[in-house]
This record gives sequence, structure tokens and C-alpha cells, in this order.
Amino acid sequence: MARFMFDAPTVIKTKRDGGRLSAETIDWVVRAYTDGDVADEQMSALLMAIFLRGMDPDEIARWTAAMVASGERFDFGDLSRDGKPLALVDKHSTGGVGDKITLTVVPVVIACGGAVPQAAGRGLGHTGGTLDKLEAIRGFTAELPRDRIRRQLCEVGAAIFAAGELAPADRKIYALRDVTGTTESLPLIASSVMSKKIAEGTRALVLDCKVGSGAFLKTEAESRELARTMVDLGTAHGVVTRALLTDMNTPLGASVGNSVEVAEALEVLAGGGPADVVELTLALAAEMLDAAGLDARDPADTLRDGSAMDCFRALIAAQGGDLSVPLPLGTHTETVTADRSGTMGDIDAMAVAMAAWRLGAGRAHPADAVQSGAGVRIHRRPGEPVTAGEAVFTLYTDTAERLGPALAALDGGWSVAGGEFSCRSLVIDRIVP
Amino acid sequence: MARFMFDAPTVIKTKRDGGRLSAETIDWVVRAYTDGDVADEQMSALLMAIFLRGMDPDEIARWTAAMVASGERFDFGDLSRDGKPLALVDKHSTGGVGDKITLTVVPVVIACGGAVPQAAGRGLGHTGGTLDKLEAIRGFTAELPRDRIRRQLCEVGAAIFAAGELAPADRKIYALRDVTGTTESLPLIASSVMSKKIAEGTRALVLDCKVGSGAFLKTEAESRELARTMVDLGTAHGVVTRALLTDMNTPLGASVGNSVEVAEALEVLAGGGPADVVELTLALAAEMLDAAGLDARDPADTLRDGSAMDCFRALIAAQGGDLSVPLPLGTHTETVTADRSGTMGDIDAMAVAMAAWRLGAGRAHPADAVQSGAGVRIHRRPGEPVTAGEAVFTLYTDTAERLGPALAALDGGWSVAGGEFSCRSLVIDRIVP
Repeated sequence: MARFMFDAPTVIKTKRDGGRLSAETIDWVVRAYTDGDVADEQMSALLMAIFLRGMDPDEIARWTAAMVASGERFDFGDLSRDGKPLALVDKHSTGGVGDKITLTVVPVVIACGGAVPQAAGRGLGHTGGTLDKLEAIRGFTAELPRDRIRRQLCEVGAAIFAAGELAPADRKIYALRDVTGTTESLPLIASSVMSKKIAEGTRALVLDCKVGSGAFLKTEAESRELARTMVDLGTAHGVVTRALLTDMNTPLGASVGNSVEVAEALEVLAGGGPADVVELTLALAAEMLDAAGLDARDPADTLRDGSAMDCFRALIAAQGGDLSVPLPLGTHTETVTADRSGTMGDIDAMAVAMAAWRLGAGRAHPADAVQSGAGVRIHRRPGEPVTAGEAVFTLYTDTAERLGPALAALDGGWSVAGGEFSCRSLVIDRIVP
Repeated sequence: MARFMFDAPTVIKTKRDGGRLSAETIDWVVRAYTDGDVADEQMSALLMAIFLRGMDPDEIARWTAAMVASGERFDFGDLSRDGKPLALVDKHSTGGVGDKITLTVVPVVIACGGAVPQAAGRGLGHTGGTLDKLEAIRGFTAELPRDRIRRQLCEVGAAIFAAGELAPADRKIYALRDVTGTTESLPLIASSVMSKKIAEGTRALVLDCKVGSGAFLKTEAESRELARTMVDLGTAHGVVTRALLTDMNTPLGASVGNSVEVAEALEVLAGGGPADVVELTLALAAEMLDAAGLDARDPADTLRDGSAMDCFRALIAAQGGDLSVPLPLGTHTETVTADRSGTMGDIDAMAVAMAAWRLGAGRAHPADAVQSGAGVRIHRRPGEPVTAGEAVFTLYTDTAERLGPALAALDGGWSVAGGEFSCRSLVIDRIVP
């Protein structure tokens, strides 16, 4: 009677009561859930038990390995360009507000000789997704068959693709976590991120681990532990993995949404753009190039001489995107003005994220469509002088009735102060194996 | 945008993080789950959060009231017999092993002038269900429309019926708890039991709260708190409610299963049967009669003079059962013998329960059928003398391959000792409002 060997209620009760899940138990439950033999309601109870009881490093490692093993693992080690093996390197952000860095750092790294295979996701919860942003570009597609990914890596130096059949267990579990309140869990975040990144076939990986009000984990200690856990997981699977801890108390750059973030990325690639976006792009690019063993070029040069922009245009064109079509912008707008003069204080990342989400930039359910033109532009950033009556934020949406709830979300999330403003540093720490 | 008022992930996160659920939140989530607007995987995550974080008395009271309000509440206050209003009284056991007391105590109470409206359940998990036992009697049905329940209460003094449309929220949640490892939770047990008992229309209720290895809650302190919580819930809803704490370390009586328990109940009603079953029957009957304000007869008389047996036969006949058909008994048997002489020691209730379950007396999934003839007979009870080679247990099943796993479950759950045996008292305490 094989049902007495493993059954879902017993597995759930083990974790519920604070016990360890054995390697065999983890292999069974991840496989059985992927195959539909463990039901959604059973996995969600187990996820809540994991959320509240935790997993030790061995459990997290096995859970991650089981998710990798639930699908195929890409291998691009045979590919070369100009007679040299590809320097495969990727980056992943744990999720920030206004975080368009993939759009700027990937072309910089290509221009410096790297090749980026990136399995990217759509936004869920309060943070946007790279694919949602890129899909604001007319014609862009992330549904790339493997042959096309291989060809693109050789010809344009990168491919940004939907995870598809990589780590199918993670895809099911990720969707479940979002609707069952089990997103903000260190073991579940670490295993989800790393199963996809290990399966996508990169050789090196730089993690951008967010710290602050706009991050999923709220304390620096938790973000640090998450970074350490993910670096260890990548290393154990043969991926050269490092992490930067970066500040996410205030939105990154001056735009939060989809097309507004693409527009800002283009500004950076054109040699301009907000200083913090440029700084983080160059810091992550330097880390990626070092992890990939590339040191021929200064990444900052690629922004100055237009070579990163050229790489971006080639990448977008390869994936069907037409940058000659104007980016969409929400037809209904609302402006928020300052009621006093002074210095712009902190802008709460979560408040801006909720506003953008309510405007239609994000989704409440996995099947929802996002509005490409929905988002928030920030006209006065922390530390900048403000004059009473000036526009501080502009909100964009295609749905007029979303403006009210979005304004309510912003309320209390920013202020104009009289005194000095002290900036936090963007890169807090660096975590290596 | 009403979705911002209540949404399941936010409710789940509130409890997950140790917060209180407001009255409005509880009303919403129970109603929305009953209506299908909250998904099974969301409710199971919430149930696990409740399991691990608990609920305070106000939350439990509101959760119970919301489950009562999810369906209709019966009212038999207008019924009378011989010109007098019915003395409506019921009992409920929190779930024991070999607990056939409903089958004996209901006819005793009828014979003493009480009327018992009992919404009964099928077994799930390790404990058997009253309906599974009664359905071992050919023709017996618990699917009674309300008119028939009313007529039976007047004509034969009791009706034992499937809960049907009473507390439909509880029916859905109960099935979910069983497969998601969230059964053994005080707030969830208390609200489940009491929502059905409040809705069934009884005026008085006696709870048999089990303590020991065969109970769902393992410590006496937890069982005591459960009893107190349920007494308070019943009282708050206008039901005269009391509880007895009773021992459930060893199985009740000498049989565990379905038809074997019916047979034992008939022995008791015939004036014989195991002493502990008789003792608990009379203790619960006395408590029920007192709660219903009946004091005309000594319940023990009804076992001696056959009047309880007459009431049982009339009740079974009214519900279609034919006691002239022999009770089924599993066609495959196995006998366990003593390998030494001495005194029978403790018999672990959980070991015998698991053996009976593996023989087919219980179910692994709500849709499973049970074997009426599956079960365990206990030939030597704790404290009785045993001679080496004598039969101690007989196992019955219709499925030969179930015998091995059942024997394995019994192994280590009993022993023959050399010395004295000290009996525990069956009734440990009495809890009143």
C-alpha cells in the first residue's frame, strides 16, 4: 500500500509541527505537485507551514534542486562568437519599484562582450515585471523557442525570454503563493529565483537584493540572509554567483510603470537619465563583467559612445520590437502639486508602487492584462528643491476611475520638508561565495 | 474598487502575521468561501495560519456564528408529544476510538422521555463516524428531509441525520482540513462542532470531550480548553451546554470498526456489554437528562427492562434499517495471540484506530467507501488476565492485502505485563457554563 509511504497530509503535518522535510519527501512533494497528484489546497497549506516554520539550508537546497529537476535545464556551453566561447552572465533583482535596470544593464554587458540568457518574469504583487515593461514596445515578444534563444545569444548577445518549461514546479508554486499570502518567505523566494536562474543556463549570475520599504523582505538582516542563501545555492549548482545589497526605500529613477520605465531606460542608454539608475546600472554591469571574467572595457564608455544603445536596439529588433512606434501613455492623467516650498523628502517606494498598481501597471490575478501606458512620473526626487504649486507627480492610466484610488495610495507617501536632506548610499554591501 | 475592501491574500496575511481577524473580515471570508469567491487554496492557507497562530475567543465566536449563518438553523421548538413540548437534547463526541456511545445513549434518553435531533457525521481521519456505523445496518438511511426529522422526533423520539444543508461552510472547511493537515486545531474543532450543533435545533447539548492518545488534541489542558470553549459557544447561542472530559487512551469497549461496534451496542442495549461502554452511556445519559430537565427515570433501568432496546429498534426501523439481516463481517481475518501469560496492559487507542482504518473501516478521502465489516475485536482488555497462546485481537476485512499493514499498525500498541494494573477513571471532569 504505497499511500502509506508518502501522503500530502503527513508531509504538511511534519512541517506544521516544526519538523524537517527529508530529501526524499521534498523530491516526492515537488514532483507530485507538478504532476497534479498533490492538490493546490495541499501545497498552499504546506507553503504556509513553510512560511511560518521556515526551512534549514539543506531543505532549501533540496527544494531548489527538485524545482530545477521538474523541467529541463538549458546548456549554452557549446555556443561561441568570433571563435570564443560565450561569456554567459545574467542578473536578477529580487523585485523593486521603478526597477528598469535589466533594460539598461543587459545592453551595457553585451557591448562589453558578455552574453546574457535571461529567463524573465511578469509582475505579480506590487513590483513590475521585466516582460510587462518590454511588452510596452510594439511587437516585442518573449516567447522564444530554444533555437531562437541560441541564435540570438550568438548574433545579438542576449535573449530575454519567458521561463516557459524551465522549472515548471516553480511556475505553479509561484502563482499559488501570490494568491495565498505566502510570497514574502526567504526559503520560498530563494528557491523560486534560483531554480529559474540555474535552469536558464547562465554561467555567472549577479543578484540585486533589495533592502527597504519597497522590498519583499523588510529588514536588512533578512535581505542579507536571502542574498547569502541564493549565492550559496547558485555556487552549489556550478553558477558563479554574487549579490549586491541595494537600497529600495525610495523608487529607483523618476518613473514607475511600464512604458514610462522603457522611456527612462532609453534616456540612460542615450547617456542621460536619473543618476541613481545610471549608478546602479554601472555597478551591476561591473559586477557581471567581473563574474564573467571580462575586463576589456569600462561599462560607462558604452553609455557615452552609444554602443549600449546600439546593442539594445539590436536586441529589441531581434525579438520583434519596433522602437519607431511611439510608446503608449495613459490617456487619463492627474497631477499632484506641492502645497509648500522646501526640499523634497523621502518618497515611500511602496506608496508609489501601490499607486502604479492601481493605475493598471500591475495585475491582481495572473490572467489579468496590464496597461502599458499606466504609471507614475516623479518630477521632484528626494533632496531636490520644490516650489509651492509645482507638479511633483503625474499619474497616467487608460481608466479614469483608477485615478482616485491611485491618488489615495500616494497620500502620505511623500512630503516637502524645510531642512537638510541626507541621501542614503545606493549600494549597501556586496556578498560573494 | 470594492476589491480593496476585502481580499483573500490580505485576510490570510493578517492572520499569518499574528493579527486578529475583525468581525466583518470573518463574516466576509466565510461567506465568500461558501459562495466560491475565495478558492480552496486560499482557505487552506488561512486555515494553516489559524492553526499556527490561533484565534481569540471573540474570533472563534464570530467564526462559529458565520458558519451557522451560512445555512439554515432548524427550530423544533413548536413540536410536542403527548401534549408536552419536546425535551430536545443531543450529545456530541470530539472523536474517539471504539466510540459507539451515540448508538446506546440515544435510545436510553428516548426511553427516559428525551427527544434527540442529531446531525451526525461520517468518519474522516482515524476516528469512525456514527453514520458509517449505522449504515452497516441493511437499509438504514440518514438522508432525512426536514419533515421526516420533525415527524420522527414526535413519533420515535429521535432522528440521526446527515448534516446536509446545515452549516454548509463547515462542510466545505471540514473536508479541506482533512486533506491539508489542519484538523487538530482548537478553534477549528470548536467552531466546526458547535456550528453544526447550534444549527441542528437542539435545546440542550452534552459534549464528550476526549483526552488521551486517541483524541485529536493530545493534552488534558488542551481538551479542557476545547470543552470550555464549546460550552461557552453553545451557551452564547441559547443552547444549554455542558461537557464531560473522558479518557481516550485506550479504545472504548471491545470493538473498533463499523458492524462490530453496532453489535457491541446491541449487547449493551440487551443489558450486557463491556463495563466501560455501559458506564459512559449512563454518565452521558444522566447529564443529558439533567440538561433537558428530565428526572423521572433512572437511565440504568432502561437497559435492564429492555425499553432502551425497544427505542433503538423503533428508531432504526423509522430510518429504514432492517436488524433482522445479519450484520456483515469481513471475510478475511487474522488473529493476534499473546506470546506470554500475565495481565493485559494498556492498549494504545491510536494503534487500534490505525489498524481498523487500514482494514477499511475508515476512509483516506471524503469520496471513499468504507467497509461495513472491517474492524478489530479486542478479546483481552486492559487489566484482564492473559494466557500465552490465547487470541488477544481478531482483525476483519474484505481485502486480504489490508491485513499486513493493519497488523503492523497494532505492533507495539499493546503488551502483556507481569505486575499489577491500575485502571484510569473514565470520566475525568465535568465542565458547565
